[in-house]
Amino acid sequence: MGEFHLAMISTGGTIEKTYQPQSGELRNETSVLDHMLAQLETPEVVIERIALMNVDSLEMEENDHRLIASTAMETSHRANGVIVVHGTDRLAVSGDATCAAGTPGAPIVFTGAMRPYELRNTDALQNLTEALLAVRLLQPGVFVAMHNKVLQFPGVIKDHDAGTFVRSTD
Amino acid sequence: MGEFHLAMISTGGTIEKTYQPQSGELRNETSVLDHMLAQLETPEVVIERIALMNVDSLEMEENDHRLIASTAMETSHRANGVIVVHGTDRLAVSGDATCAAGTPGAPIVFTGAMRPYELRNTDALQNLTEALLAVRLLQPGVFVAMHNKVLQFPGVIKDHDAGTFVRSTD
Amino acid sequence: MGEFHLAMISTGGTIEKTYQPQSGELRNETSVLDHMLAQLETPEVVIERIALMNVDSLEMEENDHRLIASTAMETSHRANGVIVVHGTDRLAVSGDATCAAGTPGAPIVFTGAMRPYELRNTDALQNLTEALLAVRLLQPGVFVAMHNKVLQFPGVIKDHDAGTFVRSTD
Amino acid sequence: MGEFHLAMISTGGTIEKTYQPQSGELRNETSVLDHMLAQLETPEVVIERIALMNVDSLEMEENDHRLIASTAMETSHRANGVIVVHGTDRLAVSGDATCAAGTPGAPIVFTGAMRPYELRNTDALQNLTEALLAVRLLQPGVFVAMHNKVLQFPGVIKDHDAGTFVRSTD
Repeated sequence: MGEFHLAMISTGGTIEKTYQPQSGELRNETSVLDHMLAQLETPEVVIERIALMNVDSLEMEENDHRLIASTAMETSHRANGVIVVHGTDRLAVSGDATCAAGTPGAPIVFTGAMRPYELRNTDALQNLTEALLAVRLLQPGVFVAMHNKVLQFPGVIKDHDAGTFVRSTD
Repeated sequence: MGEFHLAMISTGGTIEKTYQPQSGELRNETSVLDHMLAQLETPEVVIERIALMNVDSLEMEENDHRLIASTAMETSHRANGVIVVHGTDRLAVSGDATCAAGTPGAPIVFTGAMRPYELRNTDALQNLTEALLAVRLLQPGVFVAMHNKVLQFPGVIKDHDAGTFVRSTD
Repeated sequence: MGEFHLAMISTGGTIEKTYQPQSGELRNETSVLDHMLAQLETPEVVIERIALMNVDSLEMEENDHRLIASTAMETSHRANGVIVVHGTDRLAVSGDATCAAGTPGAPIVFTGAMRPYELRNTDALQNLTEALLAVRLLQPGVFVAMHNKVLQFPGVIKDHDAGTFVRSTD
Repeated sequence: MGEFHLAMISTGGTIEKTYQPQSGELRNETSVLDHMLAQLETPEVVIERIALMNVDSLEMEENDHRLIASTAMETSHRANGVIVVHGTDRLAVSGDATCAAGTPGAPIVFTGAMRPYELRNTDALQNLTEALLAVRLLQPGVFVAMHNKVLQFPGVIKDHDAGTFVRSTD
């Protein structure tokens, strides 16, 4: 069986936050995606890592969203699937921008986390596992995979009270 | 949005093995699925638990496979999706038997683990997460979800050396 | 064999911080000591929990230190041992105040953590395990147990760069 | 402050057992002590590792116990402390043999585990943490540190029903 060429674009966000003992804060400093991937079995997948930026999504600006959208769209024409790891607060803005940037050649799946991987009760591993499976099952399009759900852009928003994504018409 | 009615059939197997300090062995004694489910976010899913049997799959007999197949098939006509948690050694036998038992009304997804949940480096949470997502994305049919792959029965076998499932024609 | 009556005084601090998904911050909100104690085997110990305050040690004031000192001292005359769980930034101030408050009737052992228990790579369980053993081995006195060391007050300071406690004359 | 020279003798036993996916058994195959030590903060300690044997303690013979005893005793005259990691079933036999082998020059602390480190709910880290602290606090002698207790040889036996060590006169 052929291998599946997966491109994984990281942008920062809660999922990768690490703890700074001196200040007692959580910051985006180092990528923890490698630690997560090392725990998962993905025998047929070759992963190309693209460290695009390392920005808390609350601080993302218009050109950040545009860069994420164009990178994901271009990559989808040379890979079998694309995962974008993104802070949840502005994930839907990048998702909509990616939709507006063209017609993808492969599934583009956004994911993130409400609680950093460094926490004992994180949702990061669940969400990354779901994105890794969704990208193999879906047709070309732009999606978010998180909390046992896959939703297709456009028309997806974050429900801040529930801490998860929903369809805007729900 | 409506809720998704998921039926989860447990049969025993490695995924649920627990450690016996007196004997130093791993045995199928108690269900650990509840502990795993408590760690996952599944906000739209109502899970019906069906504890069908608690048998190491190496010790399964013909009538065990038949009971699993008929229970999964019947349940698929009253639920939105069915997950069968099964030992990996004879999982493919139950999968084939389920295929032969009729036409499912919803996706039936088998899963299991090579290393029990009680182990630090288990694959149980990954596989259960994948089954929970696959059952929401797939059309009616009989599948195994494990190790970042979904394969459709019939025609699936366990690759004992690699410790995972593959298509029999690979 | 008789039981060991241990009094455990909690005051807040990093060890008990939990994550707030809405704000992305770590705060002193709930006690996590019960979760830690549930993971440790302490067959001969009866633990009396005293939730004295829930204050980040950087915000402790003079009367907080006095209350901690007097409570620890009084408790040491009716228990076989006392553990005080304390934020590390001002732990030495409370330790010195306890020394100045009298002559203890049992060992009083301060402990804390540089990284909250909620983090995957916390030092909280190590330090609590050490305090629980130290309190059973030591003579009456005031100590800090942390990072594989036991130091006796007075004369102990936090080495902020190393993130641990040392003797002030080192 | 000077460094503490700790010699750590490993002999096999439950604490180091790892899972074999092909057979579904737990075996003494590789040392997991390094993984445990990497999680603990021991800033003043230099650890000399002595991999003496790798034997399930139920299969230890007379000359195994003699070798453990003589090695521990000799090492105690050139180190500041000695830890012996040992299977619990025959730990007391090695402890008594060490007592009979001479007068130690430093504390010799035996420890082990009822549930392997590879298990999620292991007692291995607790017991190793306790042994590492006990060896720094105790006077020369032969001890077992486990489950929040330190007991001195001779006169220590395993209570098989309780799964822990007790004084033989209790």
